Amino acid sequence: MHTKGVAPIQFLRGKNADAIVAFYFEFAQLKQLYRQGWLQRSVAKQNCESVAEHTFSVTLLAMIVADAYFPEFDTAKIMRMCLIHDLAEAYTGDYTPQHNIDKQQKKYQEQQAITKMLSKLPNSQSYIELWQEYHERQTKEAQFVKYMDQLDMVMQASIYEYLYDKDLSEFMSEIHKIDCPQIQNIFEKLCRIRHKPDQRELL
Amino acid sequence: MHTKGVAPIQFLRGKNADAIVAFYFEFAQLKQLYRQGWLQRSVAKQNCESVAEHTFSVTLLAMIVADAYFPEFDTAKIMRMCLIHDLAEAYTGDYTPQHNIDKQQKKYQEQQAITKMLSKLPNSQSYIELWQEYHERQTKEAQFVKYMDQLDMVMQASIYEYLYDKDLSEFMSEIHKIDCPQIQNIFEKLCRIRHKPDQRELL
Repeated sequence: MHTKGVAPIQFLRGKNADAIVAFYFEFAQLKQLYRQGWLQRSVAKQNCESVAEHTFSVTLLAMIVADAYFPEFDTAKIMRMCLIHDLAEAYTGDYTPQHNIDKQQKKYQEQQAITKMLSKLPNSQSYIELWQEYHERQTKEAQFVKYMDQLDMVMQASIYEYLYDKDLSEFMSEIHKIDCPQIQNIFEKLCRIRHKPDQRELL
Repeated sequence: MHTKGVAPIQFLRGKNADAIVAFYFEFAQLKQLYRQGWLQRSVAKQNCESVAEHTFSVTLLAMIVADAYFPEFDTAKIMRMCLIHDLAEAYTGDYTPQHNIDKQQKKYQEQQAITKMLSKLPNSQSYIELWQEYHERQTKEAQFVKYMDQLDMVMQASIYEYLYDKDLSEFMSEIHKIDCPQIQNIFEKLCRIRHKPDQRELL
């Protein structure tokens, strides 16, 4: 797993750190962890998004899109869910399909990581339940956050297409399956301004 | 101003992009923009936090601290304010005291940038007002977000102290002025685990 350096939590080994301080040192690893899928498509490390940057991006995008099109949603819950959706990756790393890891094994590792990180905090149960809710995808908020995760990915992919003169259409396939006209509408508008417009008809 | 590369919004010049897509290409520059204060203290670019990473960090920290100690606060408003607090830097860059820019000039540039970015969005007025509220520091939420901005800075500074065997006490001075026992308590606990404990008595 490619990272910018050693996980900050390692500096606290053997120290009796406060829960919030220790949690900060844990989640700070998301600033160090590259989104591995971009590296696998030859995005250079110095320009590769971190999981922390992706999380910022998903949360802000979710706020804007929810406010604009889904005023009936619980936006606070959505922002909370966005902020913690990839938290376990501080320990597990960012697995992509190329890592070919067993789904159950990945789920087990993530569950262990999230429990380790969150259980020391006040209100830990509510955070753990929110993380579970996201990963189970049974509520409209969990589904929406997943959609925003995918929309953020295609937005970022379209930036790398310009930057590296690439065609990253392979990242765009999943979003076609989203059954939500408002999100399809944003995606269609993104497609209109994508790099290499002559190839866009292949989509 | 040091960045990882060209601002993504430049790729959309002359294109009639949708408001949400254009906004994404604008705020994506925060993933490219280094926190200049760290570079000025010889943190290497490959390990230097971006403004996007800082924003993620402030928002998550604010959520955890507000939930733990300030249940009376409007956490949704706080998270929204955190997410947009540094948004103008996508255009202005991240000025530090070393840039020695006139305060009124900085304020004017930021106001221009935030209006350009947000006014195209649905619900733009509410976002602009929230950004103003943060910068005016007259409400408890605005004050709290500023405290979290400072707490995040000292947490990140303490990680760089370990990583680079540095003393970044200069970043710790402002937080002493915060008149809030809960935040002072977290800061004191951070100081207990800081690198080079023999020097901590200088604080």
